[in-house]
Amino acid sequence: MNLLKPTGTADYAVAGIWSHIAATEAKKYGTINYVFPKPSSSGIIPDEASWSLNPDASYVYYCDNETIQGIEYPFVPDTKGVPLVVDMSSSIMTKKIDVSRFGVIIAAVQKNLGTAGLGIVIIREDLLGRAMDICPSILNFELLSNYASILNTPPVFAVYLFGKVLEWVNSHGGLEAMEEQSKRKSELLYTTIDGSSGFYQNSVPVRNRSKTNVPIRIKNGDEGLEEEFLREAEEKGMYQLKGHSLVGGIRVSLYNAVSYEDLLILIDFMKEFLKNHS
Amino acid sequence: MNLLKPTGTADYAVAGIWSHIAATEAKKYGTINYVFPKPSSSGIIPDEASWSLNPDASYVYYCDNETIQGIEYPFVPDTKGVPLVVDMSSSIMTKKIDVSRFGVIIAAVQKNLGTAGLGIVIIREDLLGRAMDICPSILNFELLSNYASILNTPPVFAVYLFGKVLEWVNSHGGLEAMEEQSKRKSELLYTTIDGSSGFYQNSVPVRNRSKTNVPIRIKNGDEGLEEEFLREAEEKGMYQLKGHSLVGGIRVSLYNAVSYEDLLILIDFMKEFLKNHS
Repeated sequence: MNLLKPTGTADYAVAGIWSHIAATEAKKYGTINYVFPKPSSSGIIPDEASWSLNPDASYVYYCDNETIQGIEYPFVPDTKGVPLVVDMSSSIMTKKIDVSRFGVIIAAVQKNLGTAGLGIVIIREDLLGRAMDICPSILNFELLSNYASILNTPPVFAVYLFGKVLEWVNSHGGLEAMEEQSKRKSELLYTTIDGSSGFYQNSVPVRNRSKTNVPIRIKNGDEGLEEEFLREAEEKGMYQLKGHSLVGGIRVSLYNAVSYEDLLILIDFMKEFLKNHS
Repeated sequence: MNLLKPTGTADYAVAGIWSHIAATEAKKYGTINYVFPKPSSSGIIPDEASWSLNPDASYVYYCDNETIQGIEYPFVPDTKGVPLVVDMSSSIMTKKIDVSRFGVIIAAVQKNLGTAGLGIVIIREDLLGRAMDICPSILNFELLSNYASILNTPPVFAVYLFGKVLEWVNSHGGLEAMEEQSKRKSELLYTTIDGSSGFYQNSVPVRNRSKTNVPIRIKNGDEGLEEEFLREAEEKGMYQLKGHSLVGGIRVSLYNAVSYEDLLILIDFMKEFLKNHS
């Protein structure tokens, strides 16, 4: 509603559930072109050379990290001048980004920036003022900008906590340290999975693997064993490891609030579980 | 977007800023009929007999308490079968209401129910399923209902605090006590104003006076004296007494979190200020 006005059409790169939902929602307001040959939530990021981009698109949308499929873009797409819109909800603050490459960056804060109830929008100034007439005022980027983000009463606690998290990031080495930590954690986990002789499995192509969400299956999806894994993990105080119902299995989230030391406890458990059940 | 579908038209009773904003927003989605002869934010609630209701309206909207004008409806409008929609953001939980009279009750929670960042909708079941195609999913009442209000990640802290406030209300005598307290507080304040021989003034007709928001002018709008009042009040630890920029002067809010004892401190100061400056 904020960006479709110029040509009434937009490009959507759909590689997982969140981009699929975004494209479906956008269809209410214009013509949506699917950039990938298979417009599904397949969990595959095709090579950039094969993308079918429409030069007349008002914008190109993608979701940088798909939490359910466990994929992450290892590059920023080149859209040949068309404004690039990214949902970075689950990867923002885990790596340095070149903000100048983007027209709009949107993110919900509850992964790496705070608590649920607040969304952030970073928008290039020349993209303001394109809202459709039917855009509700509270969703209108230009109005929000004109009113310094207090067009309506803001969610004060979520804003306060967002500030606290930014302070925490600064006092823990800043974005550079977050990126380093994110790499270290995900490398350790994937190494453990890949070194388990097929006991633990992650089917995402290596270059597209997410550094924040790691779906794991045990022995080709042995549900009994996976349930046992989750049960024993909970006994050891590790919760929320169940995979999303759409993909099943186990899912490990490595957001900034999960420390390397936290992960080591899981890794120890994974090794012990493998020994007892392989 | 959730209710205009049946006939594409709706009735708006505009008596203050909030209903004015609501009507202006609704115009994006259909034909809006102004129920009152003067479609302004006048702060006047005309007698019900003079309301110009459209029998074909999809709904009738009003704002029960206008925080800026300081008015409150002393009755629930009779809409002759047309669904009644009310914004009760600033009066909910200050008085008993007959929920069966309403099609939809909406309220932001930050006045009497918790902290900003959460809105509540109480809707008659037969009014679900009327959303326009362009309604964003996160604003679609039927979807929210189908997903038990967790279609998206909810603002967990605001929901938690909402629960705490409901517990607090229960442990302080429930809604009955809140209503009694609201009456007592507003009566004391209006009595003080009306007994000040015109030093303090509230121009709202007595039957339409708000029990939660009381705008006050001093000596027909003596801005110097009003500024002095605000300055001295702050010195005594009483903040946020400045009137909204649209109406000027002073505004006293008497939400449930303000106790009768809190108000007594203000009343004492008002009497002292009167003595020193009349």
